[in-house]
Amino acid sequence: MSRDVVNAVLRAHDGRFVGDGVHAPDLERILKQISTWRDWFGAWAATGARYEDLAGEAAAARAQVTAGEFYWLACLYYHYAQFLWFHDPDMRASGQRRKAELYNSAAPLLDPPAERVEIVHGPWRIPGFLRLPPAPGPVPCVVLLGGLESTKEESRRFEEMCTQRGMATMAFDGPGQGEMFSQVRFRPDIESFTSAVIDYLGTRHEIDAQRMGILGRSLGGYLAVRSAAFDHRLRACVAWGALNDLRHWDHIPELTRAGFVHIAGLKDQSEAREFYDEAVSLQGIAEQIACPLYVLHGAQDTVLPGDHVERLRAATRHVPQDIVIEPDGNHCCHNLYPIVRPRMADWLAKTLGVVGR
Amino acid sequence: MSRDVVNAVLRAHDGRFVGDGVHAPDLERILKQISTWRDWFGAWAATGARYEDLAGEAAAARAQVTAGEFYWLACLYYHYAQFLWFHDPDMRASGQRRKAELYNSAAPLLDPPAERVEIVHGPWRIPGFLRLPPAPGPVPCVVLLGGLESTKEESRRFEEMCTQRGMATMAFDGPGQGEMFSQVRFRPDIESFTSAVIDYLGTRHEIDAQRMGILGRSLGGYLAVRSAAFDHRLRACVAWGALNDLRHWDHIPELTRAGFVHIAGLKDQSEAREFYDEAVSLQGIAEQIACPLYVLHGAQDTVLPGDHVERLRAATRHVPQDIVIEPDGNHCCHNLYPIVRPRMADWLAKTLGVVGR
Repeated sequence: MSRDVVNAVLRAHDGRFVGDGVHAPDLERILKQISTWRDWFGAWAATGARYEDLAGEAAAARAQVTAGEFYWLACLYYHYAQFLWFHDPDMRASGQRRKAELYNSAAPLLDPPAERVEIVHGPWRIPGFLRLPPAPGPVPCVVLLGGLESTKEESRRFEEMCTQRGMATMAFDGPGQGEMFSQVRFRPDIESFTSAVIDYLGTRHEIDAQRMGILGRSLGGYLAVRSAAFDHRLRACVAWGALNDLRHWDHIPELTRAGFVHIAGLKDQSEAREFYDEAVSLQGIAEQIACPLYVLHGAQDTVLPGDHVERLRAATRHVPQDIVIEPDGNHCCHNLYPIVRPRMADWLAKTLGVVGR
Repeated sequence: MSRDVVNAVLRAHDGRFVGDGVHAPDLERILKQISTWRDWFGAWAATGARYEDLAGEAAAARAQVTAGEFYWLACLYYHYAQFLWFHDPDMRASGQRRKAELYNSAAPLLDPPAERVEIVHGPWRIPGFLRLPPAPGPVPCVVLLGGLESTKEESRRFEEMCTQRGMATMAFDGPGQGEMFSQVRFRPDIESFTSAVIDYLGTRHEIDAQRMGILGRSLGGYLAVRSAAFDHRLRACVAWGALNDLRHWDHIPELTRAGFVHIAGLKDQSEAREFYDEAVSLQGIAEQIACPLYVLHGAQDTVLPGDHVERLRAATRHVPQDIVIEPDGNHCCHNLYPIVRPRMADWLAKTLGVVGR
């Protein structure tokens, strides 16, 4: 693995790190420690460990806000340690574990706090975090889905865009993601997991069950459309990146393909290609969506080709569409995050009937 | 003016831009447009204008949170346009005006809102912004002072660290700063302006007059110590950068010296050297401080030499001191902002009697 791998990752995800909350001077210092891909995990993890120590000191001094902030930064940096680190599953699993533990420490200290819930669904327990805005309820709620490489712990910044606008958020790990990976590998039917989460939200008096939406990023964009198509209790859907299927398999970046092999517990890429050909498809499904749809896509995306947007547009013509293609946007328009993210939050707020935010 | 000037500014202030809220991808795009110092104003102002347009669109769509965010970003980018731009006073003044107007648009939309106040003091009206935390009052309040190159509009990030910890903030322009420049140039007696602000805060039922502190950055660190020495109603003082006087004049970076000439309305540097020799001094003053003092200083500071810390330490031995010298810290430890800033906010909270934050 050469420096080229590092450069390709940085290019494809330019803006993502800082957009999700990594501090730019930390990113700069971390990247200075990385010569080749082999250095990636260690450099991020060392910075994560530093923040974990600082968080412990702050907690001991009862500086709660700082402790929450530092535990969350430690979590985020461990997340990026194990990010795309599929060639060494044990090390990846250790990073994932630290990340989840650190978020558990941060969660009650965030503002608003993140409440951990575990939702029973068949033989599984779906872990999620619910955040409620400081607003009189019942409030709308946005369900947040991770992608191939994101989990319930990393959406803090977007969650707070929602809570600032008077909406609750519910981020959970689906099959193959984060803490769920050890229980169940990626499977085609994400919708049953989403519906279980929606059932749960219906039991919370703080949430307005008539005003629930969903947003997913990257592979999560696919999962969000699929979930909304199957569960019409969802009244707004955002695909933060358009994806209908994985037929462009051969054009997917190497590390991302390795990720698809990993999350489904497959043997190799040829098995994965066959599996995903059936497992990931919106054919005949996107057509079932019944709520307004917002799609954000970067014309410079090197992970998700632009023809996916047009196919998704065609399949969902029967619902109100807001389809935004940013000419200069990279994967998920991460490089334009200061502008595109508030707009998605605004669209959700408007579509879910929030007034005056 | 060459590229060297740009590089020196970026080096001295590394971390400041993003620490104060500039988005890293915006900074990167702006710096790409800057070949020499001559390009500085225009590149920042163009980005500011872009956000101003976006803010107007958001406001028209009644997306209040987004409008506030974008007006504030526009303000911040106009601030950095006129930052150190002393060689062209008219252009600088136009940038300052836009910045102040844009903050006026942002202020009521921020969370918590920033309330504009104008405090009559002799022949002057001191403009300031008060932000109240969402906590039952009366609450402690931190008075925030700008420096040579910062004004009441730019402390948003630090203000929110205070409000998150249950403290109000009051940022104002003193003589020679921001909007006050047109009324009155820099003068030795900042303390009378601070005291007028403290008088005003005493009239606000939301504020606990027994729990007021002050923080100043860079030249503001000097102004804060001076203010606390003269007004013992201040119960906590943070010097974010230590400065006792300007006897190291010849070692001050060129653009900064031009700034000192400018804010006091002087003719040239030789006049300035003479003026500041008397006008800026803590001799016999620092000794009068009566409240706990926190000093943060970067050992790598190229603007404020390290011997200032030791002199300040010696002059204030009679009060409880927390003096933090960061070995790797640059000017005001901007390059370490994720760690050093929450700690200052925590110290203020603890010293002003906030419990459980």
